[in-house]
Amino acid sequence: MAEEKKLVEEITAREVDFTQWYTDVVKKARLMSYSSIKGFMNYLPNGYAIWENIQKQMDARFKENGVENVYLPMLIPESLLEKEKDHVEGFAPEVAWVTKGGNNELEERLCVRPTSETMFCELYKTLVHSYRDLPKTYNQWCSVVRWEKTTRPFLRSSEFLWQEGHTAFATAEECEEFTIRMLNVYADFTEEVLAIPVVRGQKTDKEKFAGAENTYTIESLMPDGKALQCGTSHDFGDGFAKAFDIQYTDKDNQLHYVHQNSFGYSTRMIGAIIMVHGDDSGLVLPPRIAPTQVIIIPIRQDSECVSEKAKEIEATLRKAGFSVKTDFSDKRPGWKFSEAEMLGIPLRIEIGPKDLEKGKCVLVRRDNREKTEVDISEVAEKVKELLDTEQQALYDKAKKYMDTHISEAHTYDEFKDCIENKPGFVKAMWCGDEACENQIKADTTATSRCMPFGAEPIDGKCICCGKPAHKLVYWGKAY
Amino acid sequence: MAEEKKLVEEITAREVDFTQWYTDVVKKARLMSYSSIKGFMNYLPNGYAIWENIQKQMDARFKENGVENVYLPMLIPESLLEKEKDHVEGFAPEVAWVTKGGNNELEERLCVRPTSETMFCELYKTLVHSYRDLPKTYNQWCSVVRWEKTTRPFLRSSEFLWQEGHTAFATAEECEEFTIRMLNVYADFTEEVLAIPVVRGQKTDKEKFAGAENTYTIESLMPDGKALQCGTSHDFGDGFAKAFDIQYTDKDNQLHYVHQNSFGYSTRMIGAIIMVHGDDSGLVLPPRIAPTQVIIIPIRQDSECVSEKAKEIEATLRKAGFSVKTDFSDKRPGWKFSEAEMLGIPLRIEIGPKDLEKGKCVLVRRDNREKTEVDISEVAEKVKELLDTEQQALYDKAKKYMDTHISEAHTYDEFKDCIENKPGFVKAMWCGDEACENQIKADTTATSRCMPFGAEPIDGKCICCGKPAHKLVYWGKAY
Repeated sequence: MAEEKKLVEEITAREVDFTQWYTDVVKKARLMSYSSIKGFMNYLPNGYAIWENIQKQMDARFKENGVENVYLPMLIPESLLEKEKDHVEGFAPEVAWVTKGGNNELEERLCVRPTSETMFCELYKTLVHSYRDLPKTYNQWCSVVRWEKTTRPFLRSSEFLWQEGHTAFATAEECEEFTIRMLNVYADFTEEVLAIPVVRGQKTDKEKFAGAENTYTIESLMPDGKALQCGTSHDFGDGFAKAFDIQYTDKDNQLHYVHQNSFGYSTRMIGAIIMVHGDDSGLVLPPRIAPTQVIIIPIRQDSECVSEKAKEIEATLRKAGFSVKTDFSDKRPGWKFSEAEMLGIPLRIEIGPKDLEKGKCVLVRRDNREKTEVDISEVAEKVKELLDTEQQALYDKAKKYMDTHISEAHTYDEFKDCIENKPGFVKAMWCGDEACENQIKADTTATSRCMPFGAEPIDGKCICCGKPAHKLVYWGKAY
Repeated sequence: MAEEKKLVEEITAREVDFTQWYTDVVKKARLMSYSSIKGFMNYLPNGYAIWENIQKQMDARFKENGVENVYLPMLIPESLLEKEKDHVEGFAPEVAWVTKGGNNELEERLCVRPTSETMFCELYKTLVHSYRDLPKTYNQWCSVVRWEKTTRPFLRSSEFLWQEGHTAFATAEECEEFTIRMLNVYADFTEEVLAIPVVRGQKTDKEKFAGAENTYTIESLMPDGKALQCGTSHDFGDGFAKAFDIQYTDKDNQLHYVHQNSFGYSTRMIGAIIMVHGDDSGLVLPPRIAPTQVIIIPIRQDSECVSEKAKEIEATLRKAGFSVKTDFSDKRPGWKFSEAEMLGIPLRIEIGPKDLEKGKCVLVRRDNREKTEVDISEVAEKVKELLDTEQQALYDKAKKYMDTHISEAHTYDEFKDCIENKPGFVKAMWCGDEACENQIKADTTATSRCMPFGAEPIDGKCICCGKPAHKLVYWGKAY
């Protein structure tokens, strides 16, 4: 048993040091490795496969909403980046500049895209002329570069993978409707597939995207009580359209500016999955996002009956649509159990000579290690049932955690105490003044996470300045 | 009919100007548009959807061969690019250099990846220690930048999308086997899915990849008689392993260098599809790669019976697994026919009141416009049959073209005449001396495309210098 223990002992316990636990899991589950360029990481097969699953399922949801995929150049001319004032101020300080192409100095330097609003605007200017050309709802899956000072695997790195949707609509109403619709696509996906509950709401002006009129966000809570911004959808109104002169002729033969939106979701969600569901034995992957859903581990695989039956079960499960592997490596079963747990595989099937005699095998859930003995003839039905149950159990557990980590403050002392001693979101009223947000951040390091949709005021005055306040804000420390 | 005619008239006939025809089709089918940066293009939905289909099907074939997907940084430090001598000489003149990150000058400049051998080598050095860590067969889907002087949509641009596989094996034999295996994956995919016949063979030293011991290639023939390199698979031997010091401990407890291979396939294949199959009415897409396989065009869609039946047929076909759309737009049927042809949709279904009376609809193939009247109750079976037939017909036609455009030369005069007057491949013997290749290129602009696998010598002496020759080469002008 020494080896198995060692495998687990190499992970720091969450209670001891959550940050170190995270780094340990990321490495031991071989999700990523550091490259030689500071802040840039290698996405290894176990990590990238999670992203592929996110892509596949998210992309299907996009397509149901009429989104079409495209690919635009990764380099942006400086003059284009500068066209929208707020946007360039937000991004220019953190971009990588290309100054030389081949052996020649470039006449105009180009930045590696930190986001592509400007490129899509330039494209839409050439594609949109009449109301018949609208709406445009394009999206691209790509990587972006933002020169970060401090980085952490998946959560913050100088290059990351994401999708960025960019749209153009005839009216402000259609644009706003789509902006919220995409936020709900993110929220539903995150809850249904990643089993991570979220709060849906609007960002304050201070926290919104550079160049946006309104930014909507989904926020989740990590087990250390810190908030993580999961996905954002921005309504630009006609600000970019005016900066880039994107106009269309309406049925009334008049020229109008288009209204635009953008929305993004990134590989940082791999970080969220790790933190929200993982435990001291490693990753715990929700069945709907796990690259391998079931691992079969034969006990006494030297017995031909056992290995044959293992292959048979694998074939049955694959045919039923599950992603399944059998571990025939020359390691001992105990070691294989630990490794399967480290990798977060939702369900393990143990099968040995004694099980075979009874025509049974044993199913073990990753999340709670619950064992179920099942007839081999019923294995596909049982696997489906247990994976569904586990998916729901992971969501329920995370939801319960979030619900019990939202506190409420009515005075500034109460607020500071909550931020200091009650990890999670703190609900408190806000007057709408950015000065109060700055004060709160200076005093507590907490930031406004969002103004949740449909939230009722819990008080009449600002938690910070005491002036009349109508806006309920979820505050918190954040990643 | 004026509008329909106009739509087609906007395409230059192939006979008149093949190059202009290509550009016209690319634009009219809305596959791409030019960006404001010279040599960089926007992949629009119709073009990108073809790439998505290539990705999906190619990726499945890779995974059957044990390939795992990863993602490595897009930027490469100059010192890393320089580690393998031939490699840096091949690529340094055509890379884009990042010299500034955020507001700071970088200590070492970074290039935007033109290809990622060096990054994978650096990764493998950290991952490979023992024979148990081998083989490594990683792949990434990404874009690369190569600063090109002259560019053409899909065929040559400064940024393009591709996949690049990079491997490490214990022995030279395994590496060579895998190199050839991947070439055959490309060849089979190109012939079976894209319906483009290819010649499989080996590159001469002059034409091989920078840093490779052997480069294998698949070459196809375009309708103007020019060759197109479709995909390449390179055997590096242990050259990169020595430059990057990638060693593993074998079972005998001795250190050995790994043997490596890389293989790539890109969006230039969209260009090949356009050229090989297209006609004077626009694109012709092989059914297995067409984003939309079937378009239903209702005649008299104002009739509720017609539009209901059209929807019913669409649902039936979708359920049967076909990608299908119905054009309910307010354009006239004739215009819709022309547009569907322009977009290359393999099968069109016409359904009007008269067809309905008979319980029939009309299926029209894109490639030869052949019409088939079928019972609506049998539409799914018939669609399958016709799509299969069309896929095969496109391949057969292209194969016949290629087979009848391979000529043979035994004297240098004959050779020059062939290159000048017989578009296609020219088979001729070569002594193995690079000087002869250079001479041939200077005299004819033709290059050695490949030395086909299993080709028998057709003569005993070099076509250029007359010295003894054992190698049969396919020569040609190339894209």
